[in-house]
Amino acid sequence: MEKLTLIKVGGKIVEEAESLNQLLRDFASVEGHKVLVHGGGRSATAVAAKLGIESKMVNGRRITDEETLKVVTMVYGGLVNKQIVAQLQAMGINALGLTGADLNYMQSEKRPVKDIDYGFVGDVKKVNAGIMADLIARDVVPVLAPLTHDKNGHLLNTNADTIAGEAAKALAEFFDVSLVYCFEKKGVLLDENDDESVISQLNPALFEKYVSEGIIQGGMIPKLENAFEALHAGVKEVIITKADNIHLNEGTVIIL
Amino acid sequence: MEKLTLIKVGGKIVEEAESLNQLLRDFASVEGHKVLVHGGGRSATAVAAKLGIESKMVNGRRITDEETLKVVTMVYGGLVNKQIVAQLQAMGINALGLTGADLNYMQSEKRPVKDIDYGFVGDVKKVNAGIMADLIARDVVPVLAPLTHDKNGHLLNTNADTIAGEAAKALAEFFDVSLVYCFEKKGVLLDENDDESVISQLNPALFEKYVSEGIIQGGMIPKLENAFEALHAGVKEVIITKADNIHLNEGTVIIL
Repeated sequence: MEKLTLIKVGGKIVEEAESLNQLLRDFASVEGHKVLVHGGGRSATAVAAKLGIESKMVNGRRITDEETLKVVTMVYGGLVNKQIVAQLQAMGINALGLTGADLNYMQSEKRPVKDIDYGFVGDVKKVNAGIMADLIARDVVPVLAPLTHDKNGHLLNTNADTIAGEAAKALAEFFDVSLVYCFEKKGVLLDENDDESVISQLNPALFEKYVSEGIIQGGMIPKLENAFEALHAGVKEVIITKADNIHLNEGTVIIL
Repeated sequence: MEKLTLIKVGGKIVEEAESLNQLLRDFASVEGHKVLVHGGGRSATAVAAKLGIESKMVNGRRITDEETLKVVTMVYGGLVNKQIVAQLQAMGINALGLTGADLNYMQSEKRPVKDIDYGFVGDVKKVNAGIMADLIARDVVPVLAPLTHDKNGHLLNTNADTIAGEAAKALAEFFDVSLVYCFEKKGVLLDENDDESVISQLNPALFEKYVSEGIIQGGMIPKLENAFEALHAGVKEVIITKADNIHLNEGTVIIL
């Protein structure tokens, strides 16, 4: 199978003109087939504020009422996604912006209300990657916005990390997929106060050890659990690295 | 060649939940390959107003400064386009929302400043319909937003009628294309005060006659000139009809 690099970038790097341009240059230089998954939370919060809509976050997740859904549809599906697509086209990359509704590639279900009502937030149920895989084989580069749909006419706000993981798993049927999560640090750190203490490789045994020792904690735990789940589902490798460095593979490589 | 129906709808019909739903039902029932081109001007004006941005129109065209470009990117490329895509998916139509930047399918050039500076408005220069045609052959239904790009990283606001005409001409290489323009009236009228006085068929000679007699005037003249240009470029027929009636072909059929 041919290699496919699926890169998830989020945070302010995609929302400031200069860092976005550098990121897209790095992304464009990644060899072979590739997919970009982006966030856009800061822009959504900014546009919502200008529209007089308050952004409510619980555990880092946006409570998505009807008006907020319109904002994220505009910002993720329109503003952020199409600006990335246009800039990649200028670099000779044949980009195609997609939400989960486009080509029906990612279906979700509105999250059931338990302790918290997240509103119009979708949990992924089904991924149809066939047409996307054919387009990738023709050198099209999908740019995935963090939106899915319920196949009943409703768009749903969906975490970009989840979109990346689910798309990677579905595309693993067609390609040797490397899933790259970009964030602020160079990788998973042994010492959170030392940005250079990157753990170069993690497997399940080492992960358990570091968790039990308290070295890996907080939001990194579910991120890594998702990484192992993706590996079990056929993804070749998961890399956690810094967003300004996506072509260098200097981060933490997660394997089984 | 197989038949393709390319339908352009604009105005408030796509921007009110009830009429949009009926329109999409009618569209979904059109047999064979199809493409939908939409506007979204009223929503753009409404969102711009909420953001404190004044909408300036000259000859029915929006003056698109930098902030306005962001609004139309959000509204046309995100809000309107993705809601249509999600609703069509619910009706079993495999819709794919596109701006001209996606798949680099429609390139334009920023309109030169003469008497009026329209700002970030694009005049179409090049259409690459190959991948779109392949997708259509696989029963994908493109939903085209009125945005193009200049291949230098900039999105440009482009009139939806123009998008429809240019896409129809490019797709005529692959399909027998019927281009349908939907608007408020049942067709081109002999008497503007009689909504039932639809001219059933128009050819160039009849068009010249009606223009010289003052029966066809105003904004309908460039619309029909574009229709004849599309026919000369290989489109099979152009139909002007009412938006709530798109499957009945009761409008004005324009032929050479």
